[in-house]
Amino acid sequence: MKAMGPIPAWFSSSEDAQLRIGGWSADELIDRAGGTPLFAYDNNIVGSQIARFRSAMPDGLALHYAVKANSYSPLLRFLARYVEGFDIASSGELQLLKDADVDGLPISFAGPGKRDDEIERAIAAGVTLNVESEGEAERALAIAELVGRQPKIAIRVNPPFGIKGAGMKMGGLASQFGVDADRAAALVKRVIESGAEWRGLHIFAGSQVLAADALIEAQRATVALAGEIADAAGAEPPEVNLGGGCGIPYFPGEEPLDIIAVGAALSETFVDVADSLANTRFAMELGRWLVGEAGVYLTRIIDRKSSGGSTFLVTDGGLHHMLAASGNFGQVLRRNYPVAIASRFGCEPDEDVTVTGCLCTPLDLLADDVALPHAEPGDVVAVFCAGAYGLSASPQAFLSHPPAREMLV
Amino acid sequence: MKAMGPIPAWFSSSEDAQLRIGGWSADELIDRAGGTPLFAYDNNIVGSQIARFRSAMPDGLALHYAVKANSYSPLLRFLARYVEGFDIASSGELQLLKDADVDGLPISFAGPGKRDDEIERAIAAGVTLNVESEGEAERALAIAELVGRQPKIAIRVNPPFGIKGAGMKMGGLASQFGVDADRAAALVKRVIESGAEWRGLHIFAGSQVLAADALIEAQRATVALAGEIADAAGAEPPEVNLGGGCGIPYFPGEEPLDIIAVGAALSETFVDVADSLANTRFAMELGRWLVGEAGVYLTRIIDRKSSGGSTFLVTDGGLHHMLAASGNFGQVLRRNYPVAIASRFGCEPDEDVTVTGCLCTPLDLLADDVALPHAEPGDVVAVFCAGAYGLSASPQAFLSHPPAREMLV
Repeated sequence: MKAMGPIPAWFSSSEDAQLRIGGWSADELIDRAGGTPLFAYDNNIVGSQIARFRSAMPDGLALHYAVKANSYSPLLRFLARYVEGFDIASSGELQLLKDADVDGLPISFAGPGKRDDEIERAIAAGVTLNVESEGEAERALAIAELVGRQPKIAIRVNPPFGIKGAGMKMGGLASQFGVDADRAAALVKRVIESGAEWRGLHIFAGSQVLAADALIEAQRATVALAGEIADAAGAEPPEVNLGGGCGIPYFPGEEPLDIIAVGAALSETFVDVADSLANTRFAMELGRWLVGEAGVYLTRIIDRKSSGGSTFLVTDGGLHHMLAASGNFGQVLRRNYPVAIASRFGCEPDEDVTVTGCLCTPLDLLADDVALPHAEPGDVVAVFCAGAYGLSASPQAFLSHPPAREMLV
Repeated sequence: MKAMGPIPAWFSSSEDAQLRIGGWSADELIDRAGGTPLFAYDNNIVGSQIARFRSAMPDGLALHYAVKANSYSPLLRFLARYVEGFDIASSGELQLLKDADVDGLPISFAGPGKRDDEIERAIAAGVTLNVESEGEAERALAIAELVGRQPKIAIRVNPPFGIKGAGMKMGGLASQFGVDADRAAALVKRVIESGAEWRGLHIFAGSQVLAADALIEAQRATVALAGEIADAAGAEPPEVNLGGGCGIPYFPGEEPLDIIAVGAALSETFVDVADSLANTRFAMELGRWLVGEAGVYLTRIIDRKSSGGSTFLVTDGGLHHMLAASGNFGQVLRRNYPVAIASRFGCEPDEDVTVTGCLCTPLDLLADDVALPHAEPGDVVAVFCAGAYGLSASPQAFLSHPPAREMLV
């Protein structure tokens, strides 16, 4: 038997042993959605995370949502009521915000491979370009000139430090992201001299961090670096985007990030901020931490079979909807996401089973040799932590199975 | 500097140093397609692989195409002229065959999580169901009874042996695929007694095999196992699908499979075939080996930048189109696919670069620290071995970038 990741604390068992999401049982949600597989996102969890963030963080810290984590339209509309801005990674995401009727909030656009047509569209929409290189800055200035608009430009900086234990390191390395810190001030000057509206800096050292001390240290270094760049450029950045980095527990033994500690430390950091940042508005850009635990992937068991002494539960879902749970998205060694049987939620396990998807490939593994309550075809498996980098980060067309449903609850 | 996989021998350099696919330069193809990113599939390579297969293999061996490898409609139409059958992994793939106007060839359907509606559709279309468990067989029989059709059923068998060095093992393990070999004969009897049309056996021990001797050994064992099951069931299987297994070289040091040796050995195996298989038609089911090397992913360089002493080429493509090349699909350690600069094809390398996609994630790596001829924004990077498990096996919606184009040349 292999361990599973921890089921998020938002989901507690009830007397009738039904998994409830936003007050509804899994069966009720599936009925409403018209079937499985279904991603159900609980907006109360998203709202609670926002509230926890606000209460932990210093006043005046802006909260941005990173659209790439989950761009489901109703979720974007919900988030628009609570965040101060959106961060996008393509002009397609800009279109998604428009399609969701999300207007009026500031938008910034990061990404190392912005095409000319994307830059033009972003400038036309008043989006801040977080430029990732000197070359991209020149392209943006040239395009802005061509279309006769003053562009909004922030400089994305590749920091000379990473974050210890980050799930993904985005600093302290040679990287396609941002300009190296020692070239940032020169680029700031160039942008200001060009007549563009300089919006500030974007410095992001790593994501999926669970250790508060590591994130605290990186944020201190990030604020210090922003001050150094501002000093060297002789210009006060209107905004500094500290990136995100807040992780959620996916795997056995992982513990939630202590967001209170992170907020307290950031408040202290702001007390001693450099003079060149005295009027700067700081922002954090969160995706996974806001929406990851809010999502549950519900998939129905089609077959129960035994092979070589093991029991397999074969579901109607799989890696085409939830690639990360199969271990094929940024993981070196596969580990088990938290899963449960929705109609026996909180019940003691009574067998070891392997839960697979329906795809005709051995990669399609949702839970490998885990202890679960007995389940039969027709029962529903819940895969937790499916709210971020779930459906949109999966090969949905693979093997041409039906699309997953999504629902904001 | 890190090594790359070998560029398939089909692509040879020319005097003008232009990569040619089906006689067209990459630039010409991109013009015709309307832009990058573009998957170009060379039907001459597919046709040549079919011809090589035919000349190597014993007469009478049927060749099936596994639609899941690449379901691009023009490719399906092309293949339909040369193969004896299609193998599908979902009713969605059945629909793709219909949409491609591919009719009249036998179709078999394998996959561990067939839904009732898929089984019903397959029975209605005269598709052979490769049933994966006793439970699935009973469901199929019940559905056939309900709709008043005699179902065509083959038994998929989980063999007690795997293939040494297979990229993906599908035998010799507890598995969601097929019924364990020791239960196969009983299921054959049950199917025959039910009045269904028993179509035979499907035994598949592993895929992406490059060592001829390992594949030869597995095929011998597969034919022997089919004979044992037929004897035990007291019934001659009309067909035995030996699966595929034929791999292509992707990574440094890998050598092409010796298909001549595989064919010669299979001819010998057939000489001594069990009496119970004397009238059996054997088939192999190929996907990757037929189409993998025929596909090239063409993506344009948007930015060239330096960071931490390294040079990065950032392209307009990425893992949202070619997940496998990023190392995130079934690989434990990331290795480099073969890549080239299309307009300097065959030229000596003069620098070490890292080629990334445009996505805002460090996972989006197409070639890590490889030696290439100098390239600038506007130049095109070719990623080879992109014809199988390429676009359809990638998270195309991730970060909402434009879809890739596809073209059969």
